[in-house]
Amino acid sequence: MNKLRAAIIGYGNIGKYVLEALQAAPDFEIAGVVRRNGDENKPSELSQYPVVKDIKELEKVDVAILCTPTRSVEKYAKEILALGINTVDSFDIHTGIVNLRKELNQTAKQHNAVSIISAGWDPGSDSVVRTLLQAIAPKGITYTNFGPGMSMGHTVAVKAVDGVKAALSMTIPTGTGIHRRMVYIEIKDGYKYEDVAKAIKADAYFVNDETHVIEVPCVDDLLDMGHGVHLIRKGVSGKTQNQLFEFNMKINNPALTAQVLVCVARATMKQAPGCYTMVEIPVIDLLYGDREDLISHLV
Amino acid sequence: MNKLRAAIIGYGNIGKYVLEALQAAPDFEIAGVVRRNGDENKPSELSQYPVVKDIKELEKVDVAILCTPTRSVEKYAKEILALGINTVDSFDIHTGIVNLRKELNQTAKQHNAVSIISAGWDPGSDSVVRTLLQAIAPKGITYTNFGPGMSMGHTVAVKAVDGVKAALSMTIPTGTGIHRRMVYIEIKDGYKYEDVAKAIKADAYFVNDETHVIEVPCVDDLLDMGHGVHLIRKGVSGKTQNQLFEFNMKINNPALTAQVLVCVARATMKQAPGCYTMVEIPVIDLLYGDREDLISHLV
Repeated sequence: MNKLRAAIIGYGNIGKYVLEALQAAPDFEIAGVVRRNGDENKPSELSQYPVVKDIKELEKVDVAILCTPTRSVEKYAKEILALGINTVDSFDIHTGIVNLRKELNQTAKQHNAVSIISAGWDPGSDSVVRTLLQAIAPKGITYTNFGPGMSMGHTVAVKAVDGVKAALSMTIPTGTGIHRRMVYIEIKDGYKYEDVAKAIKADAYFVNDETHVIEVPCVDDLLDMGHGVHLIRKGVSGKTQNQLFEFNMKINNPALTAQVLVCVARATMKQAPGCYTMVEIPVIDLLYGDREDLISHLV
Repeated sequence: MNKLRAAIIGYGNIGKYVLEALQAAPDFEIAGVVRRNGDENKPSELSQYPVVKDIKELEKVDVAILCTPTRSVEKYAKEILALGINTVDSFDIHTGIVNLRKELNQTAKQHNAVSIISAGWDPGSDSVVRTLLQAIAPKGITYTNFGPGMSMGHTVAVKAVDGVKAALSMTIPTGTGIHRRMVYIEIKDGYKYEDVAKAIKADAYFVNDETHVIEVPCVDDLLDMGHGVHLIRKGVSGKTQNQLFEFNMKINNPALTAQVLVCVARATMKQAPGCYTMVEIPVIDLLYGDREDLISHLV
């Protein structure tokens, strides 16, 4: 079997889980890892793989899995697509997706490559469920409730507040897409809890949500990668009201993101050149195996 | 706007709900209804539409929605595809899907048409969810639990038992894909409950399931079109165990089947000639509207 050769771009939290998902996939081969420091202080789990500073140093890469911060996805994806290599990413700024798709679509078509963007769990697999539910009950409201789980974006926002030494912002679903923010902090010497808490609650990330700020002795002791989704739609099929649908997950956040990236990397090989979101590709393309065999088991 | 012209083939329970779903869809026009008796005793809700015995009597049909019994899907689909008209159906014999797909694929390609088969809720929308979950947690077990709701197939089987005047077989989920059968019957004069109940429990449809047979004065009073699904997967993403996923529905059965048929009819217009199951088409093709607009709202 000709295995797909994947490169991991960026080796933070997601990159580490992508390595595991690639190792577990029967149809992938790891071409190597690209990171800022190359193979300097190479972690032991990478000992058998090339670790380089530039993807051009790796041989025969079919697809690059971008595990970089969201804001640098466009830059890296364009550079890599220009080499004729497929890309996948978990770009997660919902309002920026249409534009990113347009930008990468051009580059991808120009270089005969495929890019699938925003391939995490939300945006990503949740988007597939939301789209399906809208199709089978076209009128109605979908609520996506997140958590309980750590919000990366909110946590970063808290850490930027003056006087915060360490922080964790947990997202707690209270239903109908409304969330409570539970913020756990350690405070720097010389700062008062009242002032820091007030500054956090006034931040744009928190000002519209019910926010509780709690001082703890050690934020690190609270860290847990678990997360959840409770997605619900009540709608109308044809002229029949009150059709009820629900999708729930309790998952390890980076592990799921990484697995989505890997199955979407597989799907890039089956699309025409261009840029896509997950709702634009057939779900069967995410799977490894004989198509008729998959249909007979899953349909 | 050029509306899609759909024909309804067969006007039983599903056909009636398809009519409503087409009337509610902004991008469809009803070309007409095909039924055995043509416009003899035409029901009032069809007064404004052509009702004919043969689809060839209808003008400019883009897609035919098959609302016939499952066992006659292949025959009708082949005849209609041969006219260059797309078809959709909710063929529900799981073991026959691969073969039907192969058969119709040939006819469809030959006549430059598209067929999407097994487009109900199971097989159908549930299949999309099962495939997605297998992709994002490749190792593990998925259980599809049905009900509580009426099983058409089991009800028909009970009605065929000697001494049964009227019957209803309800499917009750007891978890891990195991179902209890609650069978409600009226008994013909001259038959004994004990004998009829024994015959039902010995039938191939019931012999392997926990089955309870209950005599009631009026089966018709118990009829309810509501149904449900509880689909659950516990699996592994990469090397991370215990990822939990759940999909639940509480729905009107024929209304949901009809809505799926209609959104899949729309999707036939966006595929290359051939035959497909729902897992082989992008979910966004199920929706009406501008693609970028849909992506910005749903992804």
